[in-house]
Amino acid sequence: PDAAAGEAARLRQQRLTKPPGSLGRLETLAVRLAALQGRARPRLDRVRIVVFAADHGVAEEGVSAFPQAVTVEMIRNFARGGAAISVLARTLGASLEVVDVGAAADPGPLPGVVAARQGAGTANFTRAPAMTPGQLAGALGAGREAVARAREAGCDLFVAGEMGIANTTVAAALTAALLDLAPDAVAGRGTGVDDAGLARKVDAIRRALALHRAAAGDPMEALRRLGGFEIAAIAGAYIACAQAGIPAVVDGFIAGAAALAAVRVRPEVRPWLLFGHRSAEGGHARLLAALGAEPVLDLGMRLGEGTGAAASVAVLRLACALHDGMATFEEAGVSGGPA
Amino acid sequence: PDAAAGEAARLRQQRLTKPPGSLGRLETLAVRLAALQGRARPRLDRVRIVVFAADHGVAEEGVSAFPQAVTVEMIRNFARGGAAISVLARTLGASLEVVDVGAAADPGPLPGVVAARQGAGTANFTRAPAMTPGQLAGALGAGREAVARAREAGCDLFVAGEMGIANTTVAAALTAALLDLAPDAVAGRGTGVDDAGLARKVDAIRRALALHRAAAGDPMEALRRLGGFEIAAIAGAYIACAQAGIPAVVDGFIAGAAALAAVRVRPEVRPWLLFGHRSAEGGHARLLAALGAEPVLDLGMRLGEGTGAAASVAVLRLACALHDGMATFEEAGVSGGPA
Repeated sequence: PDAAAGEAARLRQQRLTKPPGSLGRLETLAVRLAALQGRARPRLDRVRIVVFAADHGVAEEGVSAFPQAVTVEMIRNFARGGAAISVLARTLGASLEVVDVGAAADPGPLPGVVAARQGAGTANFTRAPAMTPGQLAGALGAGREAVARAREAGCDLFVAGEMGIANTTVAAALTAALLDLAPDAVAGRGTGVDDAGLARKVDAIRRALALHRAAAGDPMEALRRLGGFEIAAIAGAYIACAQAGIPAVVDGFIAGAAALAAVRVRPEVRPWLLFGHRSAEGGHARLLAALGAEPVLDLGMRLGEGTGAAASVAVLRLACALHDGMATFEEAGVSGGPA
Repeated sequence: PDAAAGEAARLRQQRLTKPPGSLGRLETLAVRLAALQGRARPRLDRVRIVVFAADHGVAEEGVSAFPQAVTVEMIRNFARGGAAISVLARTLGASLEVVDVGAAADPGPLPGVVAARQGAGTANFTRAPAMTPGQLAGALGAGREAVARAREAGCDLFVAGEMGIANTTVAAALTAALLDLAPDAVAGRGTGVDDAGLARKVDAIRRALALHRAAAGDPMEALRRLGGFEIAAIAGAYIACAQAGIPAVVDGFIAGAAALAAVRVRPEVRPWLLFGHRSAEGGHARLLAALGAEPVLDLGMRLGEGTGAAASVAVLRLACALHDGMATFEEAGVSGGPA
């Protein structure tokens, strides 16, 4: 972050025709974006949304309300423009890319879909590490490469989304390991699992944590054993964003687990992350607290795909527009500006 | 509201490619707008923002951090496009109108500013009723006429904003009278008054409530005695919106007090009101609770002008875009749709 650009933005906010602080977070977000983008007047013209999709071995434990086939079906839906994130990207004028990091079935070539498959889904982490070291490296690299493509295309803001049946179970297991929490403190109903499904979810997480207990102290090893291809890819993307100086907006629970892993591996990533929304998924509050994050929106969303982060872009843009377009007290001849 | 259109929208939400309910309030807001607009796919193409500006006799009690001259200075700033609401209107592609309902000084003819002056500010309500019956009728009419102009121009959604030095004091007095609350439960720092100013504010409200005690049971009389020109105009606008079948998004504390008055006068107004944001002004929470309102945004804003409501329009539009643009399970060939 560029402290001088942030300070210039802060001083500008004091001079705009409004009582100081009266735009609340629309002021602080503009100042923060100024520091991250290194310009006193931040812009969000070029927003890149990348949805990372993958499957999870733990799905066979009956932890999701939807069949695994949905992951590939949704990859096709993203590509055809029918999914929620497709609509948001179109509405926001953001570019959308889908990265298949390893769905159970190979969707084959599709427009707008990058194949970076690390396997046909991860291993069932209740029995074995989710990923081999090579798969973890490949998934992290898929995230890094998505940021490199975004940067090449010009990118003022990066949004990572995810799709993967059973991935709230994976995010919950990883969060529990990294924050030393009980399974039932982080497991929620995800896309809408019933009581029996929730019990299976808690049980699967409990068994996974017991099996991989030794890895909890090492965030990269926890990510390998308890994570997923798309979660590792998103963690890799956040690390790459920080290295490239691109601010990223974190989506909900699953992206949040990736953010926590990334920050545990590289603490210098944290300042580059904004948080788009507070998810309805219970474990998300624990993640936000651990990361000291205050999300922009709180709309009871729990879809994933990057939708909460994308929705927040509309608010972030208003913050930038106000910061750039309002008159100062001097310009407007309004009384009561800063002394 | 059109129950059939609302039900059609609700059924459509169940068929879109996402777990039911997973878009949270983006779903319920789309369904609500469908019922209010009487079409299964609501649209927010034509948004009208009207800022009502006026001055208040109670300003002479030293209750504001800014001099009264700022009201007219800000009317000019609105007209020239430099104010926060000007920028938001431009960014959202919304039409902006300013109505001078009675600033202390007459700004004279200005582009985009309608003169509907009921006087050079209200009377000081610590000593006399704020408005005469004729002034109240004129202010209510100014609001009604603004909605008629909006309707004539085509209007999918109406946003009322306000500007008036000392009007958080007025909104607090009116709220206290209508909800039978103590002055210190509703008086906040407004645009940034210091401790001494806050004490003067609480004292002025206390004296006003004592003087006009008999009017508290009659919302129209409370509005006349304890309200302001812009607050009465906004109340008139909300009543007119309900009559014309146009949904309105309520801004923060001052517009909220106008909404409360309107709903107390005509309970059938309530369904037509959405609530844009939760203001940082303390008394706003009491208003929202009394109206059973759950605002869209919570960004710590406390500027007024309609800015919180306008900011929420960006989110409401995403709700409409998702509702209209997403594929259904059948269209997308995705498993797990409604049985």
